[in-house]
Amino acid sequence: MADIQSRIEIPVTTGPLPGSAKIYVPSDRFPDVKVAMREVALDPSASEPPVRIYDPSGPYTDPLADIDIARGLPPLRRAWTLARGDVEEYPGRDVQPEDNGMSGRQQPEVAAFPNVNLMPLRARGGAAVTQLAYARRGIVTPEMEYVAVRENLGRAALAGHVRDGEDFGASIPDHVTGEFVRDEIARGRAIIPSNINHPECEPMAIGRNFLVKINANIGNSAVASSVAEEVDKMVWSTRWGADTVMDLSTGRNIHNTREWIVRNSPVPIGTVPIYQALEKVGGVAEDLSWAIYRDTLIEQAEQGVDYFTIHAGVRLAYIHLTAKRVTGIVSRGGSIHAKWCLAHHKENFTYTHFAEICEIMRAYDISFSLGDGLRPGSIADANDAAQFAELDTLGELTKIAWERDCQVMIEGPGHVPMHKIKVNMEKQLAVCGEAPFYTLGPLTTDIAPGYDHITSGIGAAMIGWFGCAMLCYVTPKEHLGLPDRDDVKVGVITYKLAAHAADLAKGHPSAQGRDDAVSRARFDFRWRDQFNLSLDPETALKYHDETLPAEGAKTAHFCSMCGPKFCSMKITQEVREYAAKQNGGGFVDADAGMAAKSAEFLEKGAEIYLPVGR
Amino acid sequence: MADIQSRIEIPVTTGPLPGSAKIYVPSDRFPDVKVAMREVALDPSASEPPVRIYDPSGPYTDPLADIDIARGLPPLRRAWTLARGDVEEYPGRDVQPEDNGMSGRQQPEVAAFPNVNLMPLRARGGAAVTQLAYARRGIVTPEMEYVAVRENLGRAALAGHVRDGEDFGASIPDHVTGEFVRDEIARGRAIIPSNINHPECEPMAIGRNFLVKINANIGNSAVASSVAEEVDKMVWSTRWGADTVMDLSTGRNIHNTREWIVRNSPVPIGTVPIYQALEKVGGVAEDLSWAIYRDTLIEQAEQGVDYFTIHAGVRLAYIHLTAKRVTGIVSRGGSIHAKWCLAHHKENFTYTHFAEICEIMRAYDISFSLGDGLRPGSIADANDAAQFAELDTLGELTKIAWERDCQVMIEGPGHVPMHKIKVNMEKQLAVCGEAPFYTLGPLTTDIAPGYDHITSGIGAAMIGWFGCAMLCYVTPKEHLGLPDRDDVKVGVITYKLAAHAADLAKGHPSAQGRDDAVSRARFDFRWRDQFNLSLDPETALKYHDETLPAEGAKTAHFCSMCGPKFCSMKITQEVREYAAKQNGGGFVDADAGMAAKSAEFLEKGAEIYLPVGR
Repeated sequence: MADIQSRIEIPVTTGPLPGSAKIYVPSDRFPDVKVAMREVALDPSASEPPVRIYDPSGPYTDPLADIDIARGLPPLRRAWTLARGDVEEYPGRDVQPEDNGMSGRQQPEVAAFPNVNLMPLRARGGAAVTQLAYARRGIVTPEMEYVAVRENLGRAALAGHVRDGEDFGASIPDHVTGEFVRDEIARGRAIIPSNINHPECEPMAIGRNFLVKINANIGNSAVASSVAEEVDKMVWSTRWGADTVMDLSTGRNIHNTREWIVRNSPVPIGTVPIYQALEKVGGVAEDLSWAIYRDTLIEQAEQGVDYFTIHAGVRLAYIHLTAKRVTGIVSRGGSIHAKWCLAHHKENFTYTHFAEICEIMRAYDISFSLGDGLRPGSIADANDAAQFAELDTLGELTKIAWERDCQVMIEGPGHVPMHKIKVNMEKQLAVCGEAPFYTLGPLTTDIAPGYDHITSGIGAAMIGWFGCAMLCYVTPKEHLGLPDRDDVKVGVITYKLAAHAADLAKGHPSAQGRDDAVSRARFDFRWRDQFNLSLDPETALKYHDETLPAEGAKTAHFCSMCGPKFCSMKITQEVREYAAKQNGGGFVDADAGMAAKSAEFLEKGAEIYLPVGR
Repeated sequence: MADIQSRIEIPVTTGPLPGSAKIYVPSDRFPDVKVAMREVALDPSASEPPVRIYDPSGPYTDPLADIDIARGLPPLRRAWTLARGDVEEYPGRDVQPEDNGMSGRQQPEVAAFPNVNLMPLRARGGAAVTQLAYARRGIVTPEMEYVAVRENLGRAALAGHVRDGEDFGASIPDHVTGEFVRDEIARGRAIIPSNINHPECEPMAIGRNFLVKINANIGNSAVASSVAEEVDKMVWSTRWGADTVMDLSTGRNIHNTREWIVRNSPVPIGTVPIYQALEKVGGVAEDLSWAIYRDTLIEQAEQGVDYFTIHAGVRLAYIHLTAKRVTGIVSRGGSIHAKWCLAHHKENFTYTHFAEICEIMRAYDISFSLGDGLRPGSIADANDAAQFAELDTLGELTKIAWERDCQVMIEGPGHVPMHKIKVNMEKQLAVCGEAPFYTLGPLTTDIAPGYDHITSGIGAAMIGWFGCAMLCYVTPKEHLGLPDRDDVKVGVITYKLAAHAADLAKGHPSAQGRDDAVSRARFDFRWRDQFNLSLDPETALKYHDETLPAEGAKTAHFCSMCGPKFCSMKITQEVREYAAKQNGGGFVDADAGMAAKSAEFLEKGAEIYLPVGR
């Protein structure tokens, strides 16, 4: 790991993870689709093939990549988009001072990205250029094929795979094909967020029948942080496994900050456009208008944002349902819309203009992330009338968006005690026609600020198991402050383990292999392999070395927890060796021999025992 | 918080938690039963009574207590024990050099505890002096009454309490009485670990119909740590909420270390006696014998250990079932017994001598914690034949122990993917006659060493919800190294939040009050109250102050996450004020007024919407 300075002084972390190599697995179907993964090579003593790991970190972990933050990542998908022949370059919207929260001749503190592609793309002649439109026409796009290879981790179909899991009615295949991806997209059960103006993005799918994904939130606020920090957090969060990143910036320099992030992001970028729209009206919610909001959507569409959180379900009629809540409306976007609605006594303009929003989304292939502006913000408010009224509306809007070939996912809570989580998933599937669900946690208790990555990681693992497609991370700073780099990492790792626990419990065919590889390494005292196969090799190594730092301890047949005499794994190995010796053979013979001896003893043992026991 | 030095240089952390006061709630039934709790006073603006919190921290958090580590805690329960008239003082066993892992004239590095009560107590004339024996005779002991007041947090019966939760067949009362505790103990559904030689212990119950408890493991190993560190960890872990502490020390000085711990512990202490027995035979498992093991039980019984993990279910006949496991036997105790069984080709001596062990347990009221020596150590091995064969035997042994009036709980796994957790609880309840279950996690994936407090916190919350009575914590160092003070705290807080999430989901009557108090404080921007009510006020404050350190920010109506313009809670308050003003009244009027306006709009809105949406 090395920190490099980009030419304009934005340092990001590059280089492979410990023990990992970047590989590119080619597709059989498309010669130019080469899917990025990482591979962990194991100690020769293991006699095991390398373990392939799903890898959203992009070129930053490829030692051969030439990273230049001021240039941005290579436009991987541009040729695929152009080849479809349904888009056009056009001059695009002029950047206004207000886009950066400036008025008049003020200059933004954040320099404009130097290498902006001046001509954005959009659909030609009202075409829908969405993955959903192609899927419905039976087209397997390179994006879909990329996803197929990626989800399989490059493996061939598993022969004789026995499914071990409970998937609650999901339809996870043993082997993912491009055709399967197409079908899932066509049904609306999955999305590939992929704005045609974000060609740097490596395609990924969000859907119940794919690996559970996680999102990391970044973004400056009026109070703290800078563009360099946010670009670094984006790279850093994908390094540890974030599948998408939401830029939740508010305050000034918001346009320029976003451009730096999108141009350098290998993962889909999501935003909440109402935040920027509010900045454009000086923070006065009442002054918002459809015109300003629409202009903001176009601005961000041209920059390449892959999905928009749109709170079109915060209807005027529902706001009163929050009046007796313990914590009212806790979604920033939801509260802004609610204030506007009440001030004007008018319906939410994103609801009344929803069809026009769809026209924008389909012209760039921006996915809807229908926001849960009325989600509960406390255990007390979980699963209440406001929350479910909004969900019903999101279901209606999903169908409208689908009619216009727009990709859709649905945002969910929030704060929910364990016994009320499952019904959230069930209702969402029923009401929204199996559109992917994307939840924030949920937090399973309110009493542990400082540890809400864990209170919510519990809920996230459970709802992921029940069928949630993407889990929005929560960091240790939730409710308290703005996450720093360390918080981002802890949040990402916590959500990666929650998502993986969900995949395991669903019986996802590619999930358990990694657990088993870690377990074998652990049992064989291959410490380096154990570290390298783990979600965070650096922390695992550091923790090990705090008590036993010597290099020899990396091959020791014990650790500091128990010491050599009390190491159960060492004793088990001795037991096996002893049994093998007694029976002149390997485990199988030992097994049979021990069973015979033990069975023989069992009868006598029962006799010995009973008189004492009575 | 202040660190004090005891007279012999064992510093421990004392003083109240931020915003908390120690209180003692008297019992109506027994004048000398005064139950320790802590109480968090809220800001006067809240107009709310103080919040009472279950508090296992003992006198250390009482600023009026005179703490002297070299003297130990006051013998709270001694008078209760003596009053029953069924015990006798006796000279006790002489401490041997081998007890501290020494041979010949070697002196232990750890000084003997200076204030050892030279005359231990034991039952007179073969009586059973267990809480179970008294309960069966219809006696509500002071211990049971203490538990009743404690579990209620001193509140009176809840009038009109509506249960919100799913308890999977538990029988949680709205109000806990001494009689209820007695009945649960008599049925074997709960235990009060309470060795008559540990009078310093404040009574607590472990059972499915009480609050979910957590255990913290401490203990030195041959490789690291000292007695001062371990005593400090015991005090430290109970400060943050550990309900029991297991001393898993191995290596030298084990007897003296334990004495320091027990004499200063306000919570039950558990041990795994086979560890010390193994030390007495120089670490050679084959040299173990019933005589040495028995002697160790007596030694620890006289010191006051409250529960023993005894791996009597690791039967010779089951060992071969582990031969093809990915991680074999991962329990230290299990592997020691397995090695002994195989080496001698004899049945486990704790199984063959189980009745004699019961005689010891009932003479001191030591609870059985029947060990799961064959628990799975990896996802691959979860719920296998070895694990469940052992569980069946633990069920048999439970009934034998109950016949002898011994209190029993059952240890459980380990490593279990989410979809296999529930059946563990169900089988345990069925096989072991509802004896309390006490699990280690379980870890829900193996791929996150360094974060196993979280991988296991997920499983712990779930199994706690399903009915597990006590959760043994896992620290971030699990699988990697010996936990330090910070790891102990993180492990305890993680398990406290998991246990609380379980209580909430079970619908425990005293659980949600604290969540709601935190939520109200959050919504009202009572930052100090939010911190003080949380599981870890110090970390919450620290995280808040990292971005907004000014004292003014503690009363600010926003935080660094969103800043003032984007604070949803601030906007919601404005929305409510606006609505109230419009309607000339409080929330209720606002509610009605808004509903009317909204309903009126809904019709028009639907008209506005439909033409656009189609």
